[in-house]
Amino acid sequence: MENLRFEKNKLYILDQTLLPNEEKWVEIENEKHAYDAIKTLMVRGAPAIGIFAGYVTALFSKGKDIYKLKEYLDSARPTAVNLSWATKRIVHAFESGGNLIDEAKAIHNEDIEMCRKISEYGLSLLKDGDGILTHCNAGELATSKYGTGLGPLILGKEKGYKFHVYSDETRPLLQGARLTSYELEKAGIDVTLICDNMASYVMKEGLINAVLVGCDRVAANGDTANKIGTSGVAILAKHYGIPFYVLGPYSTVDFGCKTGNDIEIELRDGEEIKKMFYKKPTALEETKCLNPAFDVTDNSLITAIITDKGIAKPPFEKSLKELLK
Amino acid sequence: MENLRFEKNKLYILDQTLLPNEEKWVEIENEKHAYDAIKTLMVRGAPAIGIFAGYVTALFSKGKDIYKLKEYLDSARPTAVNLSWATKRIVHAFESGGNLIDEAKAIHNEDIEMCRKISEYGLSLLKDGDGILTHCNAGELATSKYGTGLGPLILGKEKGYKFHVYSDETRPLLQGARLTSYELEKAGIDVTLICDNMASYVMKEGLINAVLVGCDRVAANGDTANKIGTSGVAILAKHYGIPFYVLGPYSTVDFGCKTGNDIEIELRDGEEIKKMFYKKPTALEETKCLNPAFDVTDNSLITAIITDKGIAKPPFEKSLKELLK
Repeated sequence: MENLRFEKNKLYILDQTLLPNEEKWVEIENEKHAYDAIKTLMVRGAPAIGIFAGYVTALFSKGKDIYKLKEYLDSARPTAVNLSWATKRIVHAFESGGNLIDEAKAIHNEDIEMCRKISEYGLSLLKDGDGILTHCNAGELATSKYGTGLGPLILGKEKGYKFHVYSDETRPLLQGARLTSYELEKAGIDVTLICDNMASYVMKEGLINAVLVGCDRVAANGDTANKIGTSGVAILAKHYGIPFYVLGPYSTVDFGCKTGNDIEIELRDGEEIKKMFYKKPTALEETKCLNPAFDVTDNSLITAIITDKGIAKPPFEKSLKELLK
Repeated sequence: MENLRFEKNKLYILDQTLLPNEEKWVEIENEKHAYDAIKTLMVRGAPAIGIFAGYVTALFSKGKDIYKLKEYLDSARPTAVNLSWATKRIVHAFESGGNLIDEAKAIHNEDIEMCRKISEYGLSLLKDGDGILTHCNAGELATSKYGTGLGPLILGKEKGYKFHVYSDETRPLLQGARLTSYELEKAGIDVTLICDNMASYVMKEGLINAVLVGCDRVAANGDTANKIGTSGVAILAKHYGIPFYVLGPYSTVDFGCKTGNDIEIELRDGEEIKKMFYKKPTALEETKCLNPAFDVTDNSLITAIITDKGIAKPPFEKSLKELLK
């Protein structure tokens, strides 16, 4: 399940806003087009945004101020640390006289290797036949291959595991319905779509053995920003005694962020809640909406953080640093 | 905000499936029409279903087997105890030779009085300026007047209280968006619409002082069936130390039900999740959905159950019985 192609010096992305009803590939024409593609979620998922922004910076910085370009792209989505991390790598390659396209390809290839490692570490914590709950989309569409949160499921499928996955639809942008259930169905993995508010029900019914989610930014103490609703799922998992696993590349850990309080939460337009995907508005024009795109899951709710460098367990302040050794 | 009118021996309901975009009144023509109106949620909310079923049984039992009619109507929605409770009252009136229409009107008028009492008890637990989270719709549209879960807010507005209400949109049928935010906006109460998965965020931000919800059935030990997602909100409230109040008529307590395990949970069509309100399907045709309409909130998560007979606090096994004295 690819989401990006770089061919003959041209960059194409699968427009994820049209899934699952249409598979449309779009050529990215300039940096404004790229900015809009990030902003409108044609490309989304922290690692995929990073890979994309790497190619964009490499492709469109020729004859321009690369620092301004980096700043411009970084502002498209403030929460995902991978975005500014990837553009910074291209800027470093520029400063040291390297080939920018090669650097972008390196980011891309490293992500595939990284996802494979995350998936293997994650799979080591699961049993064949497990019921899994996931929220949002942290699969191949959000990364390069395998994914992070969904990686152990897709790698597990390759190895013959049979998981039973419950996918939260993930309002308001429906990544869990449109992307996760689509991606798992296509991969031949047993998946059942539920509304976000049914997570407590499936846990209480004993259908869930583990929760797997991705992450957009992990603070030094393990507090984790991820798609809105993740913190609620984590609280439910704790209540029902179900392990709650956060999966992501080690680069998602932001040691400059001491705790979750330092993570900026993007507030998006309320129209996404009452209009975007619905046939008719679900509330009156004058009714206010609050639409945070992410929330922060407290480290006390997380059983383990699974990275390409290994598995960190509480206390995360210590274990996350130790993975580097 | 009326939802039902009985005029010149004819029964009309406001089609709640069309709100907030259209206010359409429909005359109920026969028992099949009434059954469908309950099943398709044109009329919904446990007390409103009871009032409606009372009128329907009184109106359409003439020359028919009233016991079969009761059984037929009761089967439209198995979870709401008010439905069979109301049809049973009409059957009793029939058996004792009473006027069935008068009995239906009595059920209706008693509900108004009941809601007012619930609202007063509920209001006694709130402070002016409180932030309130509510789930689904337990307002005037779900009852006769005032409502149960929303009753203290609507009565409070009459008395000059200024509440700040956050309304979960309540997937998949969007009662929180389409009905609660509509009803509160019309009543001039400050309301903000959020997605179900944002409840943890608003609680963590300190915006919520109390959670108010209605109920469809309360077991003798206080376990409470209410709209799907309610148990999740209760777990979050417990985690954040926020009082969680269940409001409903005393008739919602089913002493024949020892615990929540005895409450049958209605499973509805998965198309409600992936198609009903959306412009386009959100998942592939072959993707399964699980769509429970209710869940059971464990009594350990409930701060108080507020009825027209007074306020019950844990242990509910004892306090619910004592309210009758």
